[in-house]
Amino acid sequence: TAPIRATLFPGDGIGPEIAESVKQVFREAEVPIEWEEHYVGGQIDPRTQSFLTWESLESVRRNKVGLKGPMATPIGKGHRSLNLTLRKELNLYANVRPCYSLPGYKTRYDDVNLITIRENTEGEYSGLEHQVVRGVVESIKIITRQASLRVAEYAFHYAKAHGRERVSAIHKANIMQKTDGLFLKCCREVAEKYPEIQYEEVVIDNCCMMLVKNPALFDVLVMPNLYGDIISDLCAGLIGGLGLTPSCNIGEGGIALAEAVHGSAPDIAGKNLANPTALLLSAVTMLRHLELHDKAERIQNAILNTIAEGKYRTADLGGKSSTTDFTQAI
Amino acid sequence: TAPIRATLFPGDGIGPEIAESVKQVFREAEVPIEWEEHYVGGQIDPRTQSFLTWESLESVRRNKVGLKGPMATPIGKGHRSLNLTLRKELNLYANVRPCYSLPGYKTRYDDVNLITIRENTEGEYSGLEHQVVRGVVESIKIITRQASLRVAEYAFHYAKAHGRERVSAIHKANIMQKTDGLFLKCCREVAEKYPEIQYEEVVIDNCCMMLVKNPALFDVLVMPNLYGDIISDLCAGLIGGLGLTPSCNIGEGGIALAEAVHGSAPDIAGKNLANPTALLLSAVTMLRHLELHDKAERIQNAILNTIAEGKYRTADLGGKSSTTDFTQAI
Ligand SMILES: CC(C)[C@H](C(=O)O)[C@@H](O)C(=O)O
Ligand SMILES: CC(C)[C@H](C(=O)O)[C@@H](O)C(=O)O
Repeated sequence: TAPIRATLFPGDGIGPEIAESVKQVFREAEVPIEWEEHYVGGQIDPRTQSFLTWESLESVRRNKVGLKGPMATPIGKGHRSLNLTLRKELNLYANVRPCYSLPGYKTRYDDVNLITIRENTEGEYSGLEHQVVRGVVESIKIITRQASLRVAEYAFHYAKAHGRERVSAIHKANIMQKTDGLFLKCCREVAEKYPEIQYEEVVIDNCCMMLVKNPALFDVLVMPNLYGDIISDLCAGLIGGLGLTPSCNIGEGGIALAEAVHGSAPDIAGKNLANPTALLLSAVTMLRHLELHDKAERIQNAILNTIAEGKYRTADLGGKSSTTDFTQAI
Repeated sequence: TAPIRATLFPGDGIGPEIAESVKQVFREAEVPIEWEEHYVGGQIDPRTQSFLTWESLESVRRNKVGLKGPMATPIGKGHRSLNLTLRKELNLYANVRPCYSLPGYKTRYDDVNLITIRENTEGEYSGLEHQVVRGVVESIKIITRQASLRVAEYAFHYAKAHGRERVSAIHKANIMQKTDGLFLKCCREVAEKYPEIQYEEVVIDNCCMMLVKNPALFDVLVMPNLYGDIISDLCAGLIGGLGLTPSCNIGEGGIALAEAVHGSAPDIAGKNLANPTALLLSAVTMLRHLELHDKAERIQNAILNTIAEGKYRTADLGGKSSTTDFTQAI
């Protein structure tokens, strides 16, 4: 069978080094993927109003699957963030982050095993803001039935496909009755179609308190954009940080763009010190999306076992290994 | 000297029992306070559009200091939440929550010692929401220069008065550039007047991650309404929950209304099982506001020592004591 073509954005800073790890591990595991590499940046492409070129977006649209390293948005006025441009242009409506305690890597929590699913296109990220009068400004949060149903559908579909038991919708509908109220209404509608999956609603403040007290209470969480931004980072913190958490964006038409959500760490770029774990685990979510479960399982186990053994760990995990040694060990 | 008059809202559910604890402890410690008790509920007062009567509000306005137990907002349409009514009518612009690990009461964290200061009157709580077209709704977040300066002033004033070193402004100005941008601008203006206090800005998602990884990184946090709602509950979770965290609301004209922010726990109401700690510690913040520092210190030590000793603890803390025995021990 012909190899699957996938787009690869190595990204900035440590991006190329950790992307190299992924390529190497995939080669060793004989994953039938052929990478189409795209470097972004340089000049603004007028068609996307960002440093992301039209050709790069076309590549993801064509391949329907991709992997992305950290992209630093150039500082200065009028540049749209590369991450936000990608979400918008590719209609990446759900951000999925599996979050589980890594065996052998000690944090204050050893019982985390949950998935956050974040609506990724609207809500507080509408960009609609203005000054009403001097000293009074407003931002508009938009919630639509369409986007809410779409992400709720994805959450229940995911829960079912992955043998999960419960979906919790996170909200603040006691205050934002109309917007978060509509979000909940959509979740309830979808929940009815999945009687085998339990459904509950949790207010965001209470959710954050429960997460830090006892994260084992949660299974799959689905929520509007900003709550997802907050809670997915909180959850990453429980298991050690963004360097260890995979992420995958699901778009219209079956697109899956996996990404490492940590920064580009310019201070250690090019020094062979970066931890490729988040990008590797993100690549694994991409393989699962492609239903290459055997390869996914094998690579994931290799990553987790290497970290658990503890002989090869990068500096951020308290070890002394280089990126290449850690990759080699995997 | 004449005793200080203070308003007391025992509240619903377990409220009267835990209010009784406060009264008893204050009597024993000879705190020169005379309580003016107000029970709310029953019928809607048309002047406040809520179950909170005009007389109750007048009592707080007159005394300028009060203590409030949990109030359950009656379910049904058209009733304004009692908590929100209080904030609005009394212009309680800052919600202050000291949050510190309790010696001897084990959670996953033993190094929490921070203060969250939440803007309490605007932001996402504006109540401005509407349907744009069918299936598209919006909520409006309002940030004003006046309210932002006011809460920032309070945060720096508090930091200085309490010997704190740093104020962190929590925001999402990378997305909500105008609203959170204005909030930050105001914080910066105030920060300039307090060169002895360090100032930093932390994005809310990153803040939540840092809080669960290492809460000792934070000192005083100031933020818009919803972020404060989320982060103050998260922080309460770090040290054991809302049953252990004091809270005090600061209003225009020097009003201080301390409150236990936990629920009214109707299931255990009247059974002498409730934990009065949050209300007691809230009463202590009230004493500090009145600059009755000796009494405050003595009572706080008695509470913390009783919990630390562990002989008398209520059921929620894993003990077997009744409310009255625990109170007696204090
Ligand atoms: C960088 C920022 C715009 C972004 C967001 O807020 O979505 C980030 O926090 C994320 O979660 O991907
Ligand atoms: C009950 C609710 C309206 C309230 C809020 O959101 O402010 C509560 O969570 C709080 O923090 O006092």
